[in-house]
Amino acid sequence: MDGVDHLAFERNKAQFDVEEMKIVWAGSREDFELSDRISRLVASDPVFRKDDRAVLGRKELFKNTLRKAAHAWKRVIELRLSEREAYKLRSFVDQPAFTDLHWGMFVPAILGSGTDEQQQKWLPLAYRMQIIGCYAQTELGHGSNVQGLETTATFDPKTDEFVIHSPTLTSSKWWPGGLGKVSTHAVVYARLIIDGQDYGVHGFIVQLRSLDNHLPLPGITIGDIGMKFGNAAYNTMDNGVLTFDHVRIPRNQMLMRVSQVTREGKYVHSNVPKQLVYGTMVNVRQKIVADASVALSRAVCIATRYSAVRRQFGSHNGGLETQVIDYKTQQSRLFPLLASAYAFRFVGEWLQWLYTDVTERLKANDFSTLPEAHACTAGLKSLTTTSTADGIEECRKLCGGHGYLCSSGLPELFAVYVPACTYEGDNIVLLLQVSRHLMKTVSQLGTGNKPVGTTAYMARMEQLMQYHSNVKKAEDWLKPNVVLEAFEARAARMCVACAQNLSKFTNPEEGFQELAADLVEAAVAHCQLIVVSKFIEKLQQDIPGKGVKEILEVLCSVYALFLLHKHLGDFISTGCIDPKQGSLASEQLRNLYSQVRPNAVALVDAYNYTDHYLGSILGCYDGNVYPKLYEEAWKDPLNDSVVPDGFKEFIQPMLKQQLRNARL
Amino acid sequence: MDGVDHLAFERNKAQFDVEEMKIVWAGSREDFELSDRISRLVASDPVFRKDDRAVLGRKELFKNTLRKAAHAWKRVIELRLSEREAYKLRSFVDQPAFTDLHWGMFVPAILGSGTDEQQQKWLPLAYRMQIIGCYAQTELGHGSNVQGLETTATFDPKTDEFVIHSPTLTSSKWWPGGLGKVSTHAVVYARLIIDGQDYGVHGFIVQLRSLDNHLPLPGITIGDIGMKFGNAAYNTMDNGVLTFDHVRIPRNQMLMRVSQVTREGKYVHSNVPKQLVYGTMVNVRQKIVADASVALSRAVCIATRYSAVRRQFGSHNGGLETQVIDYKTQQSRLFPLLASAYAFRFVGEWLQWLYTDVTERLKANDFSTLPEAHACTAGLKSLTTTSTADGIEECRKLCGGHGYLCSSGLPELFAVYVPACTYEGDNIVLLLQVSRHLMKTVSQLGTGNKPVGTTAYMARMEQLMQYHSNVKKAEDWLKPNVVLEAFEARAARMCVACAQNLSKFTNPEEGFQELAADLVEAAVAHCQLIVVSKFIEKLQQDIPGKGVKEILEVLCSVYALFLLHKHLGDFISTGCIDPKQGSLASEQLRNLYSQVRPNAVALVDAYNYTDHYLGSILGCYDGNVYPKLYEEAWKDPLNDSVVPDGFKEFIQPMLKQQLRNARL
Repeated sequence: MDGVDHLAFERNKAQFDVEEMKIVWAGSREDFELSDRISRLVASDPVFRKDDRAVLGRKELFKNTLRKAAHAWKRVIELRLSEREAYKLRSFVDQPAFTDLHWGMFVPAILGSGTDEQQQKWLPLAYRMQIIGCYAQTELGHGSNVQGLETTATFDPKTDEFVIHSPTLTSSKWWPGGLGKVSTHAVVYARLIIDGQDYGVHGFIVQLRSLDNHLPLPGITIGDIGMKFGNAAYNTMDNGVLTFDHVRIPRNQMLMRVSQVTREGKYVHSNVPKQLVYGTMVNVRQKIVADASVALSRAVCIATRYSAVRRQFGSHNGGLETQVIDYKTQQSRLFPLLASAYAFRFVGEWLQWLYTDVTERLKANDFSTLPEAHACTAGLKSLTTTSTADGIEECRKLCGGHGYLCSSGLPELFAVYVPACTYEGDNIVLLLQVSRHLMKTVSQLGTGNKPVGTTAYMARMEQLMQYHSNVKKAEDWLKPNVVLEAFEARAARMCVACAQNLSKFTNPEEGFQELAADLVEAAVAHCQLIVVSKFIEKLQQDIPGKGVKEILEVLCSVYALFLLHKHLGDFISTGCIDPKQGSLASEQLRNLYSQVRPNAVALVDAYNYTDHYLGSILGCYDGNVYPKLYEEAWKDPLNDSVVPDGFKEFIQPMLKQQLRNARL
Repeated sequence: MDGVDHLAFERNKAQFDVEEMKIVWAGSREDFELSDRISRLVASDPVFRKDDRAVLGRKELFKNTLRKAAHAWKRVIELRLSEREAYKLRSFVDQPAFTDLHWGMFVPAILGSGTDEQQQKWLPLAYRMQIIGCYAQTELGHGSNVQGLETTATFDPKTDEFVIHSPTLTSSKWWPGGLGKVSTHAVVYARLIIDGQDYGVHGFIVQLRSLDNHLPLPGITIGDIGMKFGNAAYNTMDNGVLTFDHVRIPRNQMLMRVSQVTREGKYVHSNVPKQLVYGTMVNVRQKIVADASVALSRAVCIATRYSAVRRQFGSHNGGLETQVIDYKTQQSRLFPLLASAYAFRFVGEWLQWLYTDVTERLKANDFSTLPEAHACTAGLKSLTTTSTADGIEECRKLCGGHGYLCSSGLPELFAVYVPACTYEGDNIVLLLQVSRHLMKTVSQLGTGNKPVGTTAYMARMEQLMQYHSNVKKAEDWLKPNVVLEAFEARAARMCVACAQNLSKFTNPEEGFQELAADLVEAAVAHCQLIVVSKFIEKLQQDIPGKGVKEILEVLCSVYALFLLHKHLGDFISTGCIDPKQGSLASEQLRNLYSQVRPNAVALVDAYNYTDHYLGSILGCYDGNVYPKLYEEAWKDPLNDSVVPDGFKEFIQPMLKQQLRNARL
């Protein structure tokens, strides 16, 4: 706006090489260049502007999404973008659309569960977008409990078809994105019924709409399920409702990679292991963890820059007031989130490796690490999405009143992010799954079944049960091993305590129900340990660039000690540390905040987000916040006229005391 | 819809007299009858329907608000409602409007700061709504720091006028509700300048718009500041921006109750004490605490009813699945919020008493309790609004995916509530104020200045520093005194620890800055003690009705032990309790949840909210959730047509591979 960098004085303070940090954040130089190039491409294209989203009505907003999706696909074709580039382009467009489900769920479902023949038939159509698909699993009455789905797919041996049917109101498919208005096809999950027998839930490819006039096919009723949280957010998406009235599909549209129905109506298993499903879940959830670090870092970037711009109180003799980022209360809320964004980034990177590792093992028929990998990704999905949703809202509050304006970008960021706590596994349900795995691991200690991967520390259970921290002064808390052992001992003891309490129940399932809240806490402790340990591992690698590793070490300590302070009760009541050591940790934390402070703005610059992608006036790169806020206000439709619509009918009669006779 | 009460089996389980509990919740039989009558009046009036709000564009939404406000006022006149009835009516209309500021801020500002003469001139106009007023304090650059406001009011002795002026961009008034499009007048806060000297911030009555054509008067620029968080929420309100270009007002429009400017330009103080301002703040904030219990109870009501309707997992042999309210993880998140709603209700009731007490003392020139009352209301405002905002969002998550739909009512409830954490004092800034009062109280122990009111427990400091809980078994935690002492000792010790750390700084202000995060935690501990102690005090009164007092005792214990568990680190590290006692508290908490369970639905029925006021399909009284959700979906504008607008331009070219040549 005025071409001046109002945050230059902050950028000059940084004690590390920002350009090198950008590479670390991106994962590699190649990743950095890809993101940089594609994000600028999107930012410079007027079709992708998003500053007007909040005021659009539902229909306009949806049409705008269709336009962006079509334009994005057009650009992919014109520029011959690779699959990876196309994926990046869709993320930087930053508007949920049916294409997310087409590429993210429909195609992978066919890839994962379709036979070679099915893949050959359907994938080329999907890759060219000659068909558009969605993923129709959840129903009005069933979300978490997939095995409870009610839609039926009954085999009719006479015609060699399945009859897809919605037997009840609650069996209506409900929520699938892209379903309501766009998708021509869906992978529909339904109970397979053959000859009156129920074989459980399977996937079926079902055509929903005519490829000519887009009308739903006979027997199919589809609609949008209505408005969702937030101004634009997921209202750009046509989450849908779908019911079937005896809709027939050919037998070969059941996804038959793992199990098949023969022409004679026999249900058979192939030699493809069922565990493949878990491999897919590991993949979907590791992507969610990666997305968490992106969403959180966007919010942190906005709050950090604005906290450096905003001044309040503390002026003496008419000088400048204090930047709010200099207040310790602001630092103690903001900097742990800044550290969390980096922590989630690195654990996400590691999960990507884990997925590759699991996939290769699966190919070699090695299932040994699968349960642990599955529990680990489930837990990390839960931990990172909960922390990110809460963290975005905290960043919004850290921006004071102005954070409540849509032009701050934060309301949108929260509303569009928060469903991640619920979809792909409700976060509490996931933690209970993790705790079951942990209880199993504990119960098998001392047997031949050695704990693997992220539970390997439990092999040292005897030692961990004896552990007491030897921290004597605040700086001791900077040693990675000291932190790591405290987190290991805390998680181990909480797990053992749960296991002991469980053993008091004659019916173990009853014990699980009764102690569920404690089990969730133990699972959280375990997952926090994973994030801390992966951050520490990352820092054992070679990281080039002046001061880069040093400031990351500071952030790693901030992340760990912040958690320790937040869960002090766990650490002390399990006897891992004593109150004095707890207060030394708080003291060290305060020191660390002072070390983060001069680097804060540079640390969020390292995310390399364009102003378009951030979508926030408060977070704009140049920090020129107030003139932009002021200008933005006038764009609201209410400002189209000086005197508002409704003045004559409603305000004037009030002022003129003529309301009594008015017809309102 | 089908006339059946699907929650009847839950209501039959209740072990207490719901009708009597309704009286307890309302405060008195008279209050109950008033709320009951007015809420039904609103619910039955088609003008006040709000189920269509989420899909309205900004302009329609705003016009709809004007219509409701005018209609509400018309009904007030027609039915000759009392001030109290009119207030209730506006709350049950449940749509933020300019009238909230007119009645809640403009009128009280004149009442509190205007001279008798000014009151006689302005109040009758305001009471008849011949003028509509707002409260123009915050500016683009200043929110929390009122003393930093930049707008000037310069006395011109030649004309006996003040010149109101906005000298900078950041001095633009920003946020005042009702300003953007409606108000004809405002109380404007500006720096009083006489003869070049700055006398600080004062209030001035300024006419903004013509009473004939509603156009802004010369020199005045006004607009709406644009969209805010959420679908409808505060977008029904015209929060505004306002700048002055040398606007002149007569000298007698400065609010002169406390200080005056004479015809000669002399600045003089009247004998009215300045402390009156604090009395007003106590009043505003006690209302906010009362509103917190309403907002939280609405969310809890929705989540509780839906948790009883929703079933997921746990079906054996094809029977019904388990109600999600039976899961301990659900209980351990929901029931503390249910208990919090009651706790906030009772502390709000007590604050109302406190305000009356303070007012009477002020009249008698007794200022002795004012600092404590001020700190106490500031702290409780912070505590209850933070817990309520977080609690609403937690309730939304407890409703799973469907909680994300606007038809659940919860997104709206969150978005419209959450600014309470920021307005009327940012919650962290307020806690710092509380901590300053606490530090002062601690420093004066042993002097003649006895701690009063909610800090009275500090008089027993020596004893509290010696305290160690004598809890030996889980049931011991049910004794009110046992709980109270633990909370007192914890708060006292955290305060003393802060005071000791502060004393290490040579510059106390530097110490306050450095230790701010610890001070905030001490303030929270103190405020939680207040809520717990007022709940306990309430239960020492006579409470009629079968089982009413008993279940309230259960809720009181739930509230206290939930806090104890959440802040276990505080209690153990200060040595108030030991880890074993902490785990006995958790054990007792589990027992208490089982006692709440059969009463849960009846406990939320006792709020006596109409389905209109709740505005939630998930929370509807009869529990007939699924058919209503299904029907509601079809009302979305996207379902107006089967094939969506944009199909021909954007989807068809994609499917037909004709995108390359399309103009998008």
